[in-house]
Amino acid sequence: MDDTNSNENKQQKMIAKLAEVFCNHVPFHNVVGFEFDQLSIEGCKISFTNKPELIGNYVQQILHGGVTATALDVVGGAMAAVGMMEKYPDADENELGRKLARIGTIDIRIDYVRPGRGESFYAKARLLRSGSKVAVVRMELHNEKDTLIALGTGTYMMG
Amino acid sequence: MDDTNSNENKQQKMIAKLAEVFCNHVPFHNVVGFEFDQLSIEGCKISFTNKPELIGNYVQQILHGGVTATALDVVGGAMAAVGMMEKYPDADENELGRKLARIGTIDIRIDYVRPGRGESFYAKARLLRSGSKVAVVRMELHNEKDTLIALGTGTYMMG
Amino acid sequence: MDDTNSNENKQQKMIAKLAEVFCNHVPFHNVVGFEFDQLSIEGCKISFTNKPELIGNYVQQILHGGVTATALDVVGGAMAAVGMMEKYPDADENELGRKLARIGTIDIRIDYVRPGRGESFYAKARLLRSGSKVAVVRMELHNEKDTLIALGTGTYMMG
Amino acid sequence: MDDTNSNENKQQKMIAKLAEVFCNHVPFHNVVGFEFDQLSIEGCKISFTNKPELIGNYVQQILHGGVTATALDVVGGAMAAVGMMEKYPDADENELGRKLARIGTIDIRIDYVRPGRGESFYAKARLLRSGSKVAVVRMELHNEKDTLIALGTGTYMMG
Repeated sequence: MDDTNSNENKQQKMIAKLAEVFCNHVPFHNVVGFEFDQLSIEGCKISFTNKPELIGNYVQQILHGGVTATALDVVGGAMAAVGMMEKYPDADENELGRKLARIGTIDIRIDYVRPGRGESFYAKARLLRSGSKVAVVRMELHNEKDTLIALGTGTYMMG
Repeated sequence: MDDTNSNENKQQKMIAKLAEVFCNHVPFHNVVGFEFDQLSIEGCKISFTNKPELIGNYVQQILHGGVTATALDVVGGAMAAVGMMEKYPDADENELGRKLARIGTIDIRIDYVRPGRGESFYAKARLLRSGSKVAVVRMELHNEKDTLIALGTGTYMMG
Repeated sequence: MDDTNSNENKQQKMIAKLAEVFCNHVPFHNVVGFEFDQLSIEGCKISFTNKPELIGNYVQQILHGGVTATALDVVGGAMAAVGMMEKYPDADENELGRKLARIGTIDIRIDYVRPGRGESFYAKARLLRSGSKVAVVRMELHNEKDTLIALGTGTYMMG
Repeated sequence: MDDTNSNENKQQKMIAKLAEVFCNHVPFHNVVGFEFDQLSIEGCKISFTNKPELIGNYVQQILHGGVTATALDVVGGAMAAVGMMEKYPDADENELGRKLARIGTIDIRIDYVRPGRGESFYAKARLLRSGSKVAVVRMELHNEKDTLIALGTGTYMMG
């Protein structure tokens, strides 16, 4: 097996591991209904469909700011997790699992730039800084028409 | 009727109006299960009981950071609403309703200082600045043992 | 005189007015030594040369975090000012002057992503939201080699 | 020598060490003119006198927002340094010096709640979280009449 295959395998396993944690171990993700679209060092992306329970202002049918905050924090944390995986290419699955479980949000800032209207939404993240102690990530929330709704910056503790 | 009674009546109506919006017009609040404990210019307070759907890390049984963000934003927005009501003591109910509907979060920063463990949680807010354009609010999340879990600062658009 | 010339004239005057305020009315700008490179609705840019007084850590010769904060706030405020000018194309100079004098920073977040090393630095800003009450701006600080040193987001009160 | 004396000696040395770094190794601190008033695990405090060079708006004689940011970051960093010293009571001076030199601001948020008017100002800090990787600190700036001018929250990398 050549290196390219080996890296592809590792990438596949990494995605599978994170996706499994994401879908089975985080009850609140099911409440919102996040889907997992992209997970790579170049960026992460999640999406979800609008539904009545996510509304904050039913007159204007605007997404609750807490849902926006959740989506940005989730995609930011996923990005930090990928950043950490890249730092430890030789870690075995158990070690990586322990490290992943210790990743946590230190702080987050969210700017709400437009009302959260849409049929569906996606949040994407980009790594700004990935160190042994903390990762800094920038996030954006858009609706299905690519309208920018909110931006975030999060600082994450590395396990 | 003397002034004290009049003010008490206004305060009662104000609480009733906000509580009604809070409980009936914000579907996502029911998902989390917020209760409305205090609503006055001295401070606002909401509370909620922990439950499986709110968990972000089921191994460690820690509240999802998005739930924390939601609670802080909700109590911060309620505080901004009370600040606005104080500015327009002579506004009628319709006018106040319209103004309330336009209150929105401009930005929020959250610092997660301890893992969100607990049987129940409360979030409280204090007004730092209340102008005609924006209000700035500081918020805290504690568990039932008064352990500080997260702090926030939010800037809110005044309607 | 056609419209293109008229707009160009207005743009010229606008730049002249802001540059004058910037250079003559803000003593602290002279302490740092900011230069004014770009001022348009597409973006603002300022630059400054490193010098001993701006150092925060002399062993490592790193820019003081307060200088970084200052540069980001200055370019963010300039961007908010341009955003306001665009909203009032028919305002006369006095009115615009009064409005400009009332622009103020409501809040700012700065992320320091790399040590502030360099011979010179530039800060640039981009308008994210420009309303009648507040403007939200994203800023970046780079050194002369285009290394990203810090990012910021600021919310500004519109006069 | 009993423990109380020993601790007092350590505290004295600690203050002397930090004060020396603060006054001799940070050129930008001399530009502003910071004084060092308190340095203990209970809190840190610095002060400075207003002067023409620190003004951002000469019409209104208001402190430049960058000076406010600098003061808050400086007192926050000092608080993080004290927090770190407390974690390593047995570290020798060289080791502590190396650790101190690596403390850096990861991110900071500042809320400007009132115009920076005053004859002199003080900034104080309180430790919210002090871990082996990061410290989180809350800061406030007041004028000589105890008017609250700005608040901040900073996250600091521990050396």
